Amino acid sequence: MKEIPLKDAYQLVEPGPTTLLTTRHEGRANVMTLSWHMVVDFTPRLACVVSEANFSHAALRATGECVIAIPDVGLAAKAVEIGNCSGREVRKFEAFGLTPKPAHKVGAPLVAECFANLECRVVDAQLADTYNLFILEVVMAWRDPRKKAPKTIHHQGYGRFIVDGETIELPSNMP
Amino acid sequence: MKEIPLKDAYQLVEPGPTTLLTTRHEGRANVMTLSWHMVVDFTPRLACVVSEANFSHAALRATGECVIAIPDVGLAAKAVEIGNCSGREVRKFEAFGLTPKPAHKVGAPLVAECFANLECRVVDAQLADTYNLFILEVVMAWRDPRKKAPKTIHHQGYGRFIVDGETIELPSNMP
Repeated sequence: MKEIPLKDAYQLVEPGPTTLLTTRHEGRANVMTLSWHMVVDFTPRLACVVSEANFSHAALRATGECVIAIPDVGLAAKAVEIGNCSGREVRKFEAFGLTPKPAHKVGAPLVAECFANLECRVVDAQLADTYNLFILEVVMAWRDPRKKAPKTIHHQGYGRFIVDGETIELPSNMP
Repeated sequence: MKEIPLKDAYQLVEPGPTTLLTTRHEGRANVMTLSWHMVVDFTPRLACVVSEANFSHAALRATGECVIAIPDVGLAAKAVEIGNCSGREVRKFEAFGLTPKPAHKVGAPLVAECFANLECRVVDAQLADTYNLFILEVVMAWRDPRKKAPKTIHHQGYGRFIVDGETIELPSNMP
């Protein structure tokens, strides 16, 4: 994994890919599937919704740290399986053959198999009680330079995903 | 446009398409381009970030209403142009040849050319001061049944978009 500038990290999340969110709490690494996220600003800060029903919710609250890892389509089946079970019952890194790697600034692990990993800290949990909504700040960003043109996946419900197709470039001044 | 069940409306937004957000304030309809949104719950509620720098910000605060319209790739060039100018200077519906249609439950207009339109009310603006973040509730949802398989666009910054590619279906119990 190669570090990328924080100012470019929003470009990984803005297109709305399904991601994996990792936490580490009480010595235990866990991973969940996350499609409910957005960019908040160019710091970059992100927002995400992690339901109280998710095992990760308590870990995110307690530690204030997570990693958002972005899988390509080759990991789609694993992303679905990860989303269909709970860290309460399953040690998911082992069960799904994912490799946790130490992050640099947070305790939650990077996912070696994902083409990008964003180390994040919770900076605002005001809306966590009402909407399970957390504001995160990306504090370090990584990208696997060997994966040149990864295709991400976009969930439409019940295991149906749109896979990235062609890329178009239009003249624009907007970041 | 045909009404669709509110319970299915999240499936339009979850994949992270670039959208258009319309408002109507002091008799004036406006439209901006919005990629910073996410699903919050299955009500459905959504979250979005509309910068204070955007003309739409004041309208959204004052009226508490908007429409999130989803363009297909055929509207990509217009979506970029809409995002590169301000309602302060440009009457965008007229300038870009978009057709505002009356919504049923909110004052903001639907966009006839978009394949889906979600009428929304602001239900929480607690984080509007700090993060320009609004919680919206979708109160009515519309889809154009003539557009069978619209391809949406996903912004990566500076006019670069990923267009929807193939769809895959994996066994999953998760909505």
